[in-house]
Amino acid sequence: MSPKAMARPGGRSARVQEAVHAAVRELEAEAGRASLTVPAVAARAGVTPSTIYRRWGDLHELLSDVAVERLRPEEPPADHGSLHTDLEAWARQFLDEMASPSGRAYIRDALLGDPDGSNAGQCSAYAADQIEVILGRATGRGEAAPDVEAVMDHVVAPMMYRILFQPGRRTASYADQLVQAALAAPVPPD
Amino acid sequence: MSPKAMARPGGRSARVQEAVHAAVRELEAEAGRASLTVPAVAARAGVTPSTIYRRWGDLHELLSDVAVERLRPEEPPADHGSLHTDLEAWARQFLDEMASPSGRAYIRDALLGDPDGSNAGQCSAYAADQIEVILGRATGRGEAAPDVEAVMDHVVAPMMYRILFQPGRRTASYADQLVQAALAAPVPPD
Repeated sequence: MSPKAMARPGGRSARVQEAVHAAVRELEAEAGRASLTVPAVAARAGVTPSTIYRRWGDLHELLSDVAVERLRPEEPPADHGSLHTDLEAWARQFLDEMASPSGRAYIRDALLGDPDGSNAGQCSAYAADQIEVILGRATGRGEAAPDVEAVMDHVVAPMMYRILFQPGRRTASYADQLVQAALAAPVPPD
Repeated sequence: MSPKAMARPGGRSARVQEAVHAAVRELEAEAGRASLTVPAVAARAGVTPSTIYRRWGDLHELLSDVAVERLRPEEPPADHGSLHTDLEAWARQFLDEMASPSGRAYIRDALLGDPDGSNAGQCSAYAADQIEVILGRATGRGEAAPDVEAVMDHVVAPMMYRILFQPGRRTASYADQLVQAALAAPVPPD
Protein backbone atom coordinates (compact mmCIF):
# COMPACT_ATOMS: atom_id res chain seq x y z
CA MET A 1 0.00 0.00 0.00
CA SER A 2 1.60 3.27 -0.96
CA PRO A 3 1.80 5.90 1.81
CA LYS A 4 -0.66 8.02 -0.18
CA ALA A 5 -3.23 5.26 0.18
CA MET A 6 -2.89 4.99 3.96
CA ALA A 7 -6.14 5.86 5.65
CA ARG A 8 -7.44 6.24 9.15
CA PRO A 9 -9.90 3.39 9.56
CA GLY A 10 -13.43 4.70 9.60
CA GLY A 11 -12.52 8.21 8.42
CA ARG A 12 -13.58 9.85 5.18
CA SER A 13 -10.33 8.69 3.70
CA ALA A 14 -11.16 5.05 4.46
CA ARG A 15 -14.65 5.43 2.97
CA VAL A 16 -13.23 6.88 -0.24
CA GLN A 17 -10.72 4.07 -0.45
CA GLU A 18 -13.39 1.41 0.03
CA ALA A 19 -15.69 3.02 -2.57
CA VAL A 20 -12.91 3.29 -5.14
CA HIS A 21 -11.67 -0.27 -4.59
CA ALA A 22 -15.25 -1.56 -4.88
CA ALA A 23 -15.74 0.44 -8.09
CA VAL A 24 -12.65 -1.19 -9.63
CA ARG A 25 -13.84 -4.68 -8.68
CA GLU A 26 -17.37 -4.08 -9.97
CA LEU A 27 -16.36 -2.48 -13.27
CA GLU A 28 -13.83 -5.20 -13.97
CA ALA A 29 -16.39 -7.93 -13.24
CA GLU A 30 -19.07 -6.27 -15.36
CA ALA A 31 -17.15 -4.95 -18.35
CA GLY A 32 -13.63 -6.37 -18.19
CA ARG A 33 -10.27 -4.87 -17.73
CA ALA A 34 -10.38 -2.53 -20.71
CA SER A 35 -13.25 -0.67 -19.01
CA LEU A 36 -10.98 0.45 -16.18
CA THR A 37 -10.15 4.09 -16.65
CA VAL A 38 -9.76 6.72 -13.93
CA PRO A 39 -12.88 8.65 -15.05
CA ALA A 40 -15.00 5.47 -15.16
CA VAL A 41 -13.82 4.32 -11.74
CA ALA A 42 -14.38 7.80 -10.29
CA ALA A 43 -17.92 7.99 -11.69
CA ARG A 44 -18.82 4.58 -10.27
CA ALA A 45 -17.29 5.41 -6.87
CA GLY A 46 -19.00 8.81 -6.71
CA VAL A 47 -15.76 10.79 -6.40
CA THR A 48 -13.98 13.15 -8.79
CA PRO A 49 -11.15 11.89 -11.00
CA SER A 50 -8.83 14.34 -9.27
CA THR A 51 -9.50 12.59 -5.95
CA ILE A 52 -8.13 9.42 -7.52
CA TYR A 53 -5.14 11.11 -9.15
CA ARG A 54 -4.30 12.93 -5.91
CA ARG A 55 -4.44 9.81 -3.83
CA TRP A 56 -3.10 7.09 -6.13
CA GLY A 57 -1.06 8.96 -8.72
CA ASP A 58 -2.38 6.96 -11.66
CA LEU A 59 -4.46 3.95 -12.64
CA HIS A 60 -1.53 1.52 -12.26
CA GLU A 61 -1.00 2.50 -8.63
CA LEU A 62 -4.69 2.13 -7.89
CA LEU A 63 -4.80 -1.32 -9.53
CA SER A 64 -1.72 -2.32 -7.55
CA ASP A 65 -3.46 -1.44 -4.27
CA VAL A 66 -6.59 -3.34 -5.31
CA ALA A 67 -4.50 -6.38 -6.32
CA VAL A 68 -2.71 -6.47 -2.98
CA GLU A 69 -6.07 -6.45 -1.19
CA ARG A 70 -7.15 -9.40 -3.32
CA LEU A 71 -3.95 -11.31 -2.58
CA ARG A 72 -4.48 -11.01 1.18
CA PRO A 73 -5.10 -14.49 2.62
CA GLU A 74 -8.59 -14.87 4.02
CA GLU A 75 -7.80 -17.28 6.81
CA PRO A 76 -4.87 -18.89 8.62
CA PRO A 77 -3.42 -22.01 6.97
CA ALA A 78 -5.22 -25.26 7.79
CA ASP A 79 -3.89 -27.49 10.57
CA HIS A 80 -3.33 -31.00 9.22
CA GLY A 81 -1.40 -32.24 12.25
CA SER A 82 2.21 -32.13 11.08
CA LEU A 83 4.70 -29.65 9.70
CA HIS A 84 5.14 -31.63 6.49
CA THR A 85 1.45 -31.93 5.68
CA ASP A 86 0.71 -28.33 6.71
CA LEU A 87 3.49 -26.87 4.60
CA GLU A 88 2.77 -29.10 1.62
CA ALA A 89 -0.93 -28.20 1.64
CA TRP A 90 -0.12 -24.50 1.96
CA ALA A 91 2.48 -24.60 -0.86
CA ARG A 92 0.14 -26.48 -3.21
CA GLN A 93 -2.64 -23.99 -2.60
CA PHE A 94 -0.29 -21.01 -2.99
CA LEU A 95 1.02 -22.35 -6.30
CA ASP A 96 -2.49 -23.09 -7.56
CA GLU A 97 -3.85 -19.68 -6.66
CA MET A 98 -0.88 -17.61 -7.79
CA ALA A 99 -0.41 -19.49 -11.06
CA SER A 100 -4.09 -19.15 -12.02
CA PRO A 101 -4.91 -16.48 -14.62
CA SER A 102 -6.39 -14.19 -11.97
CA GLY A 103 -3.52 -14.83 -9.56
CA ARG A 104 -0.96 -13.96 -12.25
CA ALA A 105 -2.91 -10.83 -13.16
CA TYR A 106 -2.97 -9.68 -9.51
CA ILE A 107 0.75 -10.29 -9.09
CA ARG A 108 1.50 -8.32 -12.24
CA ASP A 109 -0.78 -5.48 -11.14
CA ALA A 110 0.76 -5.46 -7.67
CA LEU A 111 4.32 -5.27 -9.04
CA LEU A 112 3.52 -2.84 -11.78
CA GLY A 113 1.97 0.16 -10.08
CA ASP A 114 4.36 0.05 -7.18
CA PRO A 115 7.11 2.65 -7.54
CA ASP A 116 8.42 2.23 -3.99
CA GLY A 117 8.09 -1.54 -3.71
CA SER A 118 5.79 -1.40 -0.69
CA ASN A 119 2.97 -3.36 -2.34
CA ALA A 120 5.32 -6.13 -3.42
CA GLY A 121 6.67 -6.15 0.14
CA GLN A 122 3.12 -6.56 1.42
CA CYS A 123 2.52 -9.59 -0.85
CA SER A 124 5.69 -11.17 0.49
CA ALA A 125 4.67 -10.37 4.08
CA TYR A 126 1.33 -12.17 3.57
CA ALA A 127 3.19 -15.37 2.59
CA ALA A 128 5.71 -14.98 5.43
CA ASP A 129 2.89 -14.54 7.97
CA GLN A 130 1.16 -17.73 6.83
CA ILE A 131 4.42 -19.68 6.98
CA GLU A 132 5.14 -18.31 10.43
CA VAL A 133 1.83 -19.70 11.67
CA ILE A 134 2.71 -23.14 10.24
CA LEU A 135 6.22 -23.14 11.70
CA GLY A 136 5.03 -21.85 15.08
CA ARG A 137 2.46 -24.65 15.27
CA ALA A 138 5.17 -27.20 14.41
CA THR A 139 7.45 -25.89 17.15
CA GLY A 140 4.51 -26.12 19.56
CA ARG A 141 4.17 -29.80 18.64
CA GLY A 142 7.88 -30.33 19.36
CA GLU A 143 8.80 -30.72 15.66
CA ALA A 144 12.12 -29.37 14.35
CA ALA A 145 11.34 -26.55 11.92
CA PRO A 146 13.36 -24.45 9.48
CA ASP A 147 13.18 -20.68 9.85
CA VAL A 148 10.77 -18.52 7.87
CA GLU A 149 13.50 -17.14 5.62
CA ALA A 150 14.60 -20.62 4.56
CA VAL A 151 11.04 -21.44 3.52
CA MET A 152 10.69 -18.10 1.71
CA ASP A 153 14.00 -18.65 -0.15
CA HIS A 154 13.59 -22.30 -1.05
CA VAL A 155 9.83 -22.90 -1.33
CA VAL A 156 8.06 -19.59 -2.02
CA ALA A 157 10.76 -17.97 -4.22
CA PRO A 158 11.15 -20.92 -6.64
CA MET A 159 7.37 -21.18 -7.06
CA MET A 160 7.04 -17.46 -7.71
CA TYR A 161 10.01 -17.53 -10.09
CA ARG A 162 8.37 -20.25 -12.18
CA ILE A 163 5.04 -18.42 -12.16
CA LEU A 164 6.63 -15.21 -13.41
CA PHE A 165 9.52 -16.40 -15.58
CA GLN A 166 8.86 -19.96 -16.65
CA PRO A 167 5.19 -20.25 -17.46
CA GLY A 168 4.46 -23.81 -18.48
CA ARG A 169 7.27 -25.29 -16.41
CA ARG A 170 5.04 -25.83 -13.39
CA THR A 171 4.25 -29.45 -12.61
CA ALA A 172 1.77 -30.70 -10.04
CA SER A 173 4.47 -32.21 -7.86
CA TYR A 174 6.74 -29.18 -7.92
CA ALA A 175 5.46 -27.68 -4.64
CA ASP A 176 5.80 -31.08 -2.94
CA GLN A 177 9.42 -31.48 -4.06
CA LEU A 178 10.36 -28.03 -2.79
CA VAL A 179 8.75 -28.67 0.59
CA GLN A 180 10.44 -32.06 0.84
CA ALA A 181 13.86 -30.54 0.13
CA ALA A 182 13.35 -27.60 2.52
CA LEU A 183 12.39 -29.93 5.37
CA ALA A 184 15.25 -32.36 4.62
CA ALA A 185 17.87 -29.57 4.78
CA PRO A 186 19.67 -29.32 8.10
CA VAL A 187 18.10 -26.74 10.42
CA PRO A 188 20.76 -24.13 11.19
CA PRO A 189 21.51 -23.58 14.89
CA ASP A 190 20.06 -20.40 16.40
CA MET B 1 10.32 -11.94 -27.85
CA SER B 2 6.72 -12.10 -28.94
CA PRO B 3 6.05 -13.93 -32.20
CA LYS B 4 4.99 -10.64 -33.78
CA ALA B 5 8.48 -9.29 -33.18
CA MET B 6 10.24 -12.23 -34.79
CA ALA B 7 12.24 -11.14 -37.76
CA ARG B 8 14.25 -12.74 -40.51
CA PRO B 9 17.81 -11.60 -39.84
CA GLY B 10 18.90 -9.08 -42.44
CA GLY B 11 15.42 -8.57 -43.91
CA ARG B 12 13.36 -5.40 -43.86
CA SER B 13 11.70 -6.70 -40.74
CA ALA B 14 15.03 -6.94 -38.94
CA ARG B 15 16.01 -3.42 -40.02
CA VAL B 16 12.71 -2.01 -38.73
CA GLN B 17 13.19 -3.82 -35.45
CA GLU B 18 16.73 -2.50 -35.02
CA ALA B 19 15.67 1.07 -35.87
CA VAL B 20 12.75 0.98 -33.45
CA HIS B 21 14.79 -0.54 -30.62
CA ALA B 22 17.52 2.07 -31.18
CA ALA B 23 14.92 4.85 -31.17
CA VAL B 24 13.63 3.67 -27.76
CA ARG B 25 17.15 3.57 -26.31
CA GLU B 26 18.08 6.99 -27.69
CA LEU B 27 14.88 8.77 -26.66
CA GLU B 28 15.05 7.30 -23.18
CA ALA B 29 18.69 8.34 -22.76
CA GLU B 30 18.04 11.85 -24.07
CA ALA B 31 14.70 12.74 -22.60
CA GLY B 32 13.78 10.10 -20.03
CA ARG B 33 11.10 7.56 -19.80
CA ALA B 34 8.16 9.93 -19.98
CA SER B 35 9.24 10.85 -23.52
CA LEU B 36 8.54 7.33 -24.76
CA THR B 37 5.32 7.36 -26.74
CA VAL B 38 4.56 5.35 -29.87
CA PRO B 39 4.41 8.47 -32.11
CA ALA B 40 7.74 9.78 -30.74
CA VAL B 41 9.47 6.42 -31.15
CA ALA B 42 8.06 6.04 -34.67
CA ALA B 43 9.24 9.52 -35.70
CA ARG B 44 12.75 8.86 -34.42
CA ALA B 45 12.91 5.45 -36.10
CA GLY B 46 11.56 6.76 -39.40
CA VAL B 47 8.55 4.45 -39.47
CA THR B 48 4.83 5.10 -39.10
CA PRO B 49 3.10 4.61 -35.75
CA SER B 50 0.94 1.94 -37.35
CA THR B 51 4.06 -0.10 -38.14
CA ILE B 52 4.77 -0.17 -34.40
CA TYR B 53 1.19 -0.94 -33.40
CA ARG B 54 0.97 -3.71 -36.00
CA ARG B 55 4.18 -5.34 -34.92
CA TRP B 56 4.24 -4.84 -31.16
CA GLY B 57 0.61 -4.26 -30.22
CA ASP B 58 1.38 -1.40 -27.84
CA LEU B 59 4.14 0.53 -26.14
CA HIS B 60 4.39 -1.95 -23.25
CA GLU B 61 5.09 -4.85 -25.60
CA LEU B 62 7.73 -2.84 -27.41
CA LEU B 63 9.41 -1.84 -24.13
CA SER B 64 9.33 -5.47 -23.04
CA ASP B 65 11.21 -6.55 -26.17
CA VAL B 66 13.77 -3.78 -25.71
CA ALA B 67 14.24 -4.73 -22.03
CA VAL B 68 14.87 -8.38 -22.89
CA GLU B 69 17.55 -7.31 -25.39
CA ARG B 70 19.21 -5.26 -22.66
CA LEU B 71 19.12 -8.16 -20.20
CA ARG B 72 20.95 -10.44 -22.64
CA PRO B 73 24.40 -11.29 -21.19
CA GLU B 74 27.22 -9.89 -23.29
CA GLU B 75 29.75 -12.61 -22.66
CA PRO B 76 30.11 -16.05 -21.09
CA PRO B 77 30.72 -16.11 -17.32
CA ALA B 78 34.35 -15.66 -16.26
CA ASP B 79 36.45 -18.75 -15.50
CA HIS B 80 37.97 -18.43 -12.03
CA GLY B 81 39.16 -22.01 -11.85
CA SER B 82 36.56 -23.67 -9.61
CA LEU B 83 32.82 -24.23 -9.49
CA HIS B 84 32.48 -22.40 -6.20
CA THR B 85 34.35 -19.27 -7.29
CA ASP B 86 32.71 -19.23 -10.74
CA LEU B 87 29.19 -19.56 -9.39
CA GLU B 88 29.76 -17.09 -6.57
CA ALA B 89 31.17 -14.47 -8.96
CA TRP B 90 28.29 -14.99 -11.37
CA ALA B 91 25.64 -14.80 -8.63
CA ARG B 92 27.13 -11.63 -7.14
CA GLN B 93 27.20 -9.95 -10.52
CA PHE B 94 23.66 -11.09 -11.37
CA LEU B 95 22.34 -9.73 -8.07
CA ASP B 96 24.20 -6.44 -8.51
CA GLU B 97 22.98 -5.90 -12.05
CA MET B 98 19.40 -7.02 -11.57
CA ALA B 99 18.93 -5.13 -8.29
CA SER B 100 20.25 -1.86 -9.74
CA PRO B 101 17.63 0.75 -10.67
CA SER B 102 18.09 0.05 -14.38
CA GLY B 103 18.08 -3.73 -13.85
CA ARG B 104 14.83 -3.50 -11.89
CA ALA B 105 13.30 -1.27 -14.56
CA TYR B 106 14.21 -3.76 -17.32
CA ILE B 107 12.79 -6.68 -15.37
CA ARG B 108 9.54 -4.81 -14.79
CA ASP B 109 9.34 -3.80 -18.46
CA ALA B 110 10.09 -7.35 -19.57
CA LEU B 111 7.35 -8.82 -17.34
CA LEU B 112 4.83 -6.10 -18.01
CA GLY B 113 4.40 -6.06 -21.77
CA ASP B 114 4.52 -9.80 -22.12
CA PRO B 115 1.04 -11.27 -22.52
CA ASP B 116 2.25 -14.74 -23.50
CA GLY B 117 5.19 -15.00 -21.08
CA SER B 118 7.77 -15.55 -23.82
CA ASN B 119 9.90 -12.55 -22.86
CA ALA B 120 10.03 -13.61 -19.23
CA GLY B 121 10.96 -17.09 -20.43
CA GLN B 122 13.80 -15.58 -22.45
CA CYS B 123 15.17 -13.77 -19.37
CA SER B 124 15.14 -17.03 -17.48
CA ALA B 125 16.83 -18.83 -20.40
CA TYR B 126 19.67 -16.28 -20.38
CA ALA B 127 20.42 -17.10 -16.74
CA ALA B 128 20.09 -20.85 -17.32
CA ASP B 129 22.51 -20.68 -20.27
CA GLN B 130 25.15 -18.90 -18.20
CA ILE B 131 24.79 -21.40 -15.36
CA GLU B 132 25.03 -24.27 -17.81
CA VAL B 133 28.41 -22.96 -18.99
CA ILE B 134 29.65 -22.79 -15.39
CA LEU B 135 28.39 -26.28 -14.52
CA GLY B 136 29.74 -27.77 -17.76
CA ARG B 137 33.16 -26.31 -17.02
CA ALA B 138 33.05 -27.78 -13.49
CA THR B 139 32.16 -31.21 -14.81
CA GLY B 140 35.05 -30.89 -17.28
CA ARG B 141 37.38 -30.29 -14.33
CA GLY B 142 36.03 -33.39 -12.60
CA GLU B 143 34.09 -31.43 -9.96
CA ALA B 144 30.72 -32.70 -8.69
CA ALA B 145 28.07 -30.22 -9.81
CA PRO B 146 24.35 -29.75 -9.09
CA ASP B 147 22.00 -29.60 -12.07
CA VAL B 148 20.90 -26.36 -13.71
CA GLU B 149 17.39 -26.57 -12.25
CA ALA B 150 18.71 -26.81 -8.69
CA VAL B 151 20.76 -23.64 -9.21
CA MET B 152 17.78 -21.87 -10.82
CA ASP B 153 15.49 -22.89 -7.93
CA HIS B 154 17.83 -22.21 -5.03
CA VAL B 155 20.18 -19.45 -6.20
CA VAL B 156 18.52 -17.49 -9.03
CA ALA B 157 14.91 -17.67 -7.80
CA PRO B 158 15.61 -16.43 -4.23
CA MET B 159 17.69 -13.51 -5.59
CA MET B 160 14.97 -12.55 -8.06
CA TYR B 161 12.28 -12.91 -5.39
CA ARG B 162 14.10 -10.48 -3.10
CA ILE B 163 14.68 -8.05 -5.97
CA LEU B 164 11.00 -8.04 -6.89
CA PHE B 165 9.24 -8.57 -3.58
CA GLN B 166 11.58 -7.62 -0.75
CA PRO B 167 13.43 -4.50 -1.83
CA GLY B 168 15.83 -3.50 0.91
CA ARG B 169 16.27 -7.05 2.20
CA ARG B 170 19.27 -7.70 -0.04
CA THR B 171 22.58 -7.97 1.81
CA ALA B 172 26.02 -8.16 0.22
CA SER B 173 26.57 -11.72 1.40
CA TYR B 174 23.18 -13.04 0.29
CA ALA B 175 24.37 -14.38 -3.09
CA ASP B 176 27.33 -16.08 -1.39
CA GLN B 177 25.10 -17.81 1.16
CA LEU B 178 22.77 -19.15 -1.51
CA VAL B 179 25.67 -20.50 -3.57
CA GLN B 180 27.23 -22.08 -0.49
CA ALA B 181 23.96 -23.83 0.38
CA ALA B 182 23.32 -24.98 -3.21
CA LEU B 183 26.77 -26.52 -3.47
CA ALA B 184 26.56 -28.14 -0.02
CA ALA B 185 23.28 -29.89 -0.86
CA PRO B 186 23.66 -33.50 -1.96
CA VAL B 187 23.80 -33.90 -5.72
CA PRO B 188 20.91 -36.16 -6.75
CA PRO B 189 21.91 -39.29 -8.67
CA ASP B 190 21.25 -39.20 -12.43
